[in-house]
Amino acid sequence: MGKLFLVGMGPGNPEHMTLAAEAAILQSDVLCGYTVYLQLLGDRYPDKETYTTPMRQELERCRWAVDRAAEGKTVAMLCSGDAGIYGMAGPVLELSKDRNVEVEAVPGITAAVSGAAVLGAPLMNDFCVISLSDLLTPWETIEKRLRCAAMGDFSLVLYNPRSRKRPEHLTRACDILLEYRSPDTVCGWVRNIGREGQEAHVTTLMELRRAEVDMFTTVFVGSAATREIAGRMVTPRGYQL
Amino acid sequence: MGKLFLVGMGPGNPEHMTLAAEAAILQSDVLCGYTVYLQLLGDRYPDKETYTTPMRQELERCRWAVDRAAEGKTVAMLCSGDAGIYGMAGPVLELSKDRNVEVEAVPGITAAVSGAAVLGAPLMNDFCVISLSDLLTPWETIEKRLRCAAMGDFSLVLYNPRSRKRPEHLTRACDILLEYRSPDTVCGWVRNIGREGQEAHVTTLMELRRAEVDMFTTVFVGSAATREIAGRMVTPRGYQL
Repeated sequence: MGKLFLVGMGPGNPEHMTLAAEAAILQSDVLCGYTVYLQLLGDRYPDKETYTTPMRQELERCRWAVDRAAEGKTVAMLCSGDAGIYGMAGPVLELSKDRNVEVEAVPGITAAVSGAAVLGAPLMNDFCVISLSDLLTPWETIEKRLRCAAMGDFSLVLYNPRSRKRPEHLTRACDILLEYRSPDTVCGWVRNIGREGQEAHVTTLMELRRAEVDMFTTVFVGSAATREIAGRMVTPRGYQL
Repeated sequence: MGKLFLVGMGPGNPEHMTLAAEAAILQSDVLCGYTVYLQLLGDRYPDKETYTTPMRQELERCRWAVDRAAEGKTVAMLCSGDAGIYGMAGPVLELSKDRNVEVEAVPGITAAVSGAAVLGAPLMNDFCVISLSDLLTPWETIEKRLRCAAMGDFSLVLYNPRSRKRPEHLTRACDILLEYRSPDTVCGWVRNIGREGQEAHVTTLMELRRAEVDMFTTVFVGSAATREIAGRMVTPRGYQL
C-alpha cells in the first residue's frame, strides 16, 4: 500500500509550513502540485521527483498522484493554504476510494487565518468563508450565501474575489452586502500573504467595491462590531476591557 | 519598544506548530498562556520564563503580557489553534493601543482546519464557524447565526459545543438546524485533535444531538452535498470526477 500526504503549505513562505508538513515532504518520494506553488519552495528539497500541472488541470494532477501512490510510492500532494479548504483533499479522497492508498492530511494555514493575522484580528467572532469563483458553484448560490452571511452579521472572508474572467464579482458581492450593512463597515484585503510583495489595506465596504484586488488577494468584510484600531482591523470578542 | 508575539500553537502537538511559531518562541524572553496549553509543550523550551493563568483569567494574562512588552521584554502570548480565532489577538491589540509595544501575529492551525483534516474534507466548499459559548455572545445571536448558516446551506464548524455549565447547547443547535436540514445530514466531531486520546466520529445530524462531546471537541455539520466516503466526511467541491 502506498501513501499519499495531502500537505497544506500555508501561504507560501516555507516558514509558515508546520513541522509535520515539512516532515511529510521529507519522507515523500514525489512532490506534486500547482506549478506556481512548487516554485515557492525553490530548491529547498533538491532531491525529490516533482510533478506539476498548471491551473485548471488539477484533476489530472490528483489522478496522477493517486496512481503513483497505488504503485507503492510515497507521494506528497502540495496545496497552498490547507488542502481541505478549496484544495485537493476532496477529489483525492474520492479518487482513492477502493484504491490501495493510505491518505493522510497534514493541515496548513489557510488564507483566512494568515490574512487575518496580517490585518489584525478580524475573525475574533463567528465568521463565514465564501469563494466568489463560479467555476464550480453557480453564482446564484454564492449570492444566496452572501445574503445569509450578511443577515447573520458574520464577519466574512472572500476567497477568489476577482480574476480576469470575473472582473465584476467583488463589486457585485459588495453591492449585495451593502443592502444589509453600512457603507462604513470596516473591511480589509491582503495580497500575496506571506510572500514577496505582500500588501495589506484596511478600508470600508464602500471603498472595497473598487479595490484593486486580484486572484492572489483575500478579502475580509467586518461584522457590525468590527473596528479599526491603530490601523488594524479588529472584531471585538465581547470582553469588557 | 518591546515586542509581543501572538503565537498560534495549532492543535497542541508541537509538530503542528509552524516553523515561524517556533522561531518566535525561541526569540522570546517570556512565554505566557493558558496553563493547560503551556503544559502541552512539556520541557521543549526549558530556559524560558513562563506566566500562566487558568480559564476565565485570560484578560489578566493579556494585561500582564502587554505590560511586560512595554517594559522592553520580548513576550510570546501562546494560544491554542490560532490567536485570532476566538483567541487573544483582539484584546491584546486593543490593550496595546498607545503602548510602546510592537505586536506581531504568527498564525496557527485552528481547530476548523485541523479537525477537518482528521475527518476527511468537510470544508471543501463555503463554510461558517460559530462558537456555541454564550459567555461573550448572547444566545439569541448564536441562534440567529445558526439559522442563517442553515439557510445558506453552508457547512458548519461549531466551537465550544458543550461545557458543564451549558450541557444543552449542542442539542439545541442541532434542533435548530433540523428545521432546515435532513436528519441524515452527514456530520462529524473530533475530540483532542492532534493530542493524546484523539477521537473522531462521522455521524448524522440526528445522532449528533446526543453525541458525547465536551469543550475539547470540535463539531462539523455538512451541507446538503456532504457525503460519507469510505468512512470520511467529504463535501464535494463540484468537480466532475
